[in-house]
Amino acid sequence: MAITVVGSVAYDTIETPAGKRERCLGGAATYFSLAASFFTDVRVIAVVGEDFGKRQEAVFQARSIDTTGIEHIKGKCFFWEGSYLENLNEAKTHNTELNVFAAFEPKIPEAYRDSEFLFLANIDPVLQRRVREAMPDVKLVAGDTMNYWIKDHRPALLEVLKGLDILLINDTEAKMLAGNNNLVQAARAVRALGPKALVVKHGEYGATLFSGTAGVSKSASQQVSKSASQQVSKSASQQVSESASQREDFGVKTFRAPALPLEEVVDPTGAGDSFAGGFFGYLASQKEQTPAAYRIAMFYGSVMGSFACERFGTERLQALTRAEIDERFNHFRELTHLD
Amino acid sequence: MAITVVGSVAYDTIETPAGKRERCLGGAATYFSLAASFFTDVRVIAVVGEDFGKRQEAVFQARSIDTTGIEHIKGKCFFWEGSYLENLNEAKTHNTELNVFAAFEPKIPEAYRDSEFLFLANIDPVLQRRVREAMPDVKLVAGDTMNYWIKDHRPALLEVLKGLDILLINDTEAKMLAGNNNLVQAARAVRALGPKALVVKHGEYGATLFSGTAGVSKSASQQVSKSASQQVSKSASQQVSESASQREDFGVKTFRAPALPLEEVVDPTGAGDSFAGGFFGYLASQKEQTPAAYRIAMFYGSVMGSFACERFGTERLQALTRAEIDERFNHFRELTHLD
Repeated sequence: MAITVVGSVAYDTIETPAGKRERCLGGAATYFSLAASFFTDVRVIAVVGEDFGKRQEAVFQARSIDTTGIEHIKGKCFFWEGSYLENLNEAKTHNTELNVFAAFEPKIPEAYRDSEFLFLANIDPVLQRRVREAMPDVKLVAGDTMNYWIKDHRPALLEVLKGLDILLINDTEAKMLAGNNNLVQAARAVRALGPKALVVKHGEYGATLFSGTAGVSKSASQQVSKSASQQVSKSASQQVSESASQREDFGVKTFRAPALPLEEVVDPTGAGDSFAGGFFGYLASQKEQTPAAYRIAMFYGSVMGSFACERFGTERLQALTRAEIDERFNHFRELTHLD
Repeated sequence: MAITVVGSVAYDTIETPAGKRERCLGGAATYFSLAASFFTDVRVIAVVGEDFGKRQEAVFQARSIDTTGIEHIKGKCFFWEGSYLENLNEAKTHNTELNVFAAFEPKIPEAYRDSEFLFLANIDPVLQRRVREAMPDVKLVAGDTMNYWIKDHRPALLEVLKGLDILLINDTEAKMLAGNNNLVQAARAVRALGPKALVVKHGEYGATLFSGTAGVSKSASQQVSKSASQQVSKSASQQVSESASQREDFGVKTFRAPALPLEEVVDPTGAGDSFAGGFFGYLASQKEQTPAAYRIAMFYGSVMGSFACERFGTERLQALTRAEIDERFNHFRELTHLD
C-alpha cells in the first residue's frame, strides 16, 4: 500500500570526523522516501528550487518514487549546514536557509489521494496538520518533529499529535515534549497527547517502541493465562501476539530494537528519517499491522538507519539492494536473539 | 561451580531523586555476591571493620554466600557517599573513606582454592593481580575496573588485563581505556590488551558483548555455509553456535542485551556489579560456557542490574526470588525477540 510523505527535499553541507561534503542531496522526505521505497510505493510532497534538476530527480526515479507532488518554484532549495565533529549523536547547526521552503504550501496531487499511509516528516506542524486534514481517509498516519517545534510551536504541534497514530522522535525530544526525564513516564505522557504508538530513537543504542496500555509489558505467563482457555495449541509468543492484536492500540508490547555497532559512522545525517522510512515502509507493505509486524518494522527501521550512516548523504541508500537489507536484518536478529 | 569474588564490602550514603539513605550495606563484592548467589555458590574475599556486625553478616548468610574470606580488622568499613540528582547514569562522588581498605591484603582461604571461577571486582589492580596469581588454576576469570585506575594506574591495570578472560566495563571506561571514541574500534583495542571477551554496559540502554574475531558478526548465511558440509541437519543458529564454540575465543558473535525500561530508577548504585553477578553467576552455573550460554548470561546480567535499581542499596536483591528473576528474563525476551 502506498505511502504519501510530506517533508523537506534539501541540500546539506555536512562535516564529520570522516570528512566534509558540500551540498549533498538531503532532506527528511528524501531519506524517508529512499528508505521506504525498498518496501512499498512512495509518493512525495515537497517544494524545490531551480537548483533541483534532472540529476536530483533521477535519484527518486531510480527508486520508482512518485515525484508528481514535488513542486518546482523560483529560488533555491532548503539548505542546511552542520557538523558532528564533537558528537556523532548530535548535529551542530551552522547555517539554515529556508529558501523556497519559507512559502511552502503543500498541494496534494489527485493521484496521491488513495494513499493508505501518510508520513508527516519534520516540518512546521501547521503544514503537517494541513496535509493530515486534506487526507482524512488514510489508514495509518505517522510523523516526526524536533526540539524547535516542541519548544516554540507547542500549540500547533499538539494539534498534529491528536491526529497521529505513530510518533517517531528521539530521547531528548520525548523527554522535552513530556517534561519528564524518565523515558517510560515520558512515553506514557506523550501517548496521552494522541499517538497510539511512540517510537523513541536512541541513536547508537537502537530504539524503543512504546504501545499498548502499559509502559512495560507484562510477563509472557501472565499474558498467556488470560487467553489460554481459547488458544491452547499455540506457543506462548503466538498467544501473546494474537491476544494483543485484538486491541485497537497495537498490543501491549514494549519492544526494543538494537542499532548495529558500526566500525565507522561516516555521516549520521538522515539516520532518523531512514529509520522512519524502513519502519513505516515495512508496515505499509503488510496487509495487517499486527504487533508482530510492528516488531519487524522496528528492526527494518534500525537496519535502514544503520545503512544511512555508512556514507555521506544518501549515497548508501542509493546504492543499496534488498538482499543487503535482508542480510542485515538477519544480522540484527543474531545480535539480539538468544537462539 | 563456585565463584570466588574479591572486592569491596562497604557502606554507602546515597542520594537520588527518590530520596536519601544513610550507610546502606554496599560495595562491589556485596552486590556481585548477592546477584550471583541465585545461580551458583559464591565465596567472598574482602576486608571489613568493626562496624560490620551480625546483621550485615546475615545478609550474606541468607543467600548462602561463603564469608570465610571476609577479614575483620580494627577500624571502619570502606565508605562512599554520592548522589545521582542530575544524572541517574552517573554518580557524583561527595566523599570516599578507604578506612580498613587502605591496608587490604587479600588472603585466600584454603577452602576457596578449588573455585573454578574468579571475579576481580573493581579494586586496586595491584590487588586484583595478586589474587589472580594466587589462583592460577581457575577455569575462567572476569573482572571490572573504573576510570580512576584506567587514568592513573594504567601499567598495573594492563598487567591485570593480560590475565582476564572477560572484562566488564561501561562505555566511557571502554573508550577511555582504548583511547578511541568508536565503540567497535575501542572494543577491539581493549580485547587486544588481553580479555577474550568484553562486556560494555550502556546503563539504561543495556549492554553489548564483544567476543570472537570480528567487531561485528557475520551474517548467519555466511557462517552456515562454512560448516554446512559437516552439519546438515541442524538449524542455522545451532550451526553458528557450534562452529563458533570450537574456537577458543567464545565464537564470533557480537550480542546486545537490552535493559528494562523502568518506571522509576530508585537507586542505580551497584547495578553494574549486579549485572556482573548475574552474568558470571549464570556462566558458572553451566557445564560448558558456549556462545549460547554467553548470550543467556548477558540477559541474566541485565535482569539482575534492573532489579538492583528498583530499591535503595541491596534491598531489592535481598528480597528477590528465583521465580521473579526468571519471570523478568522472559520479559526481556519478549522485549527483544521478534517471535
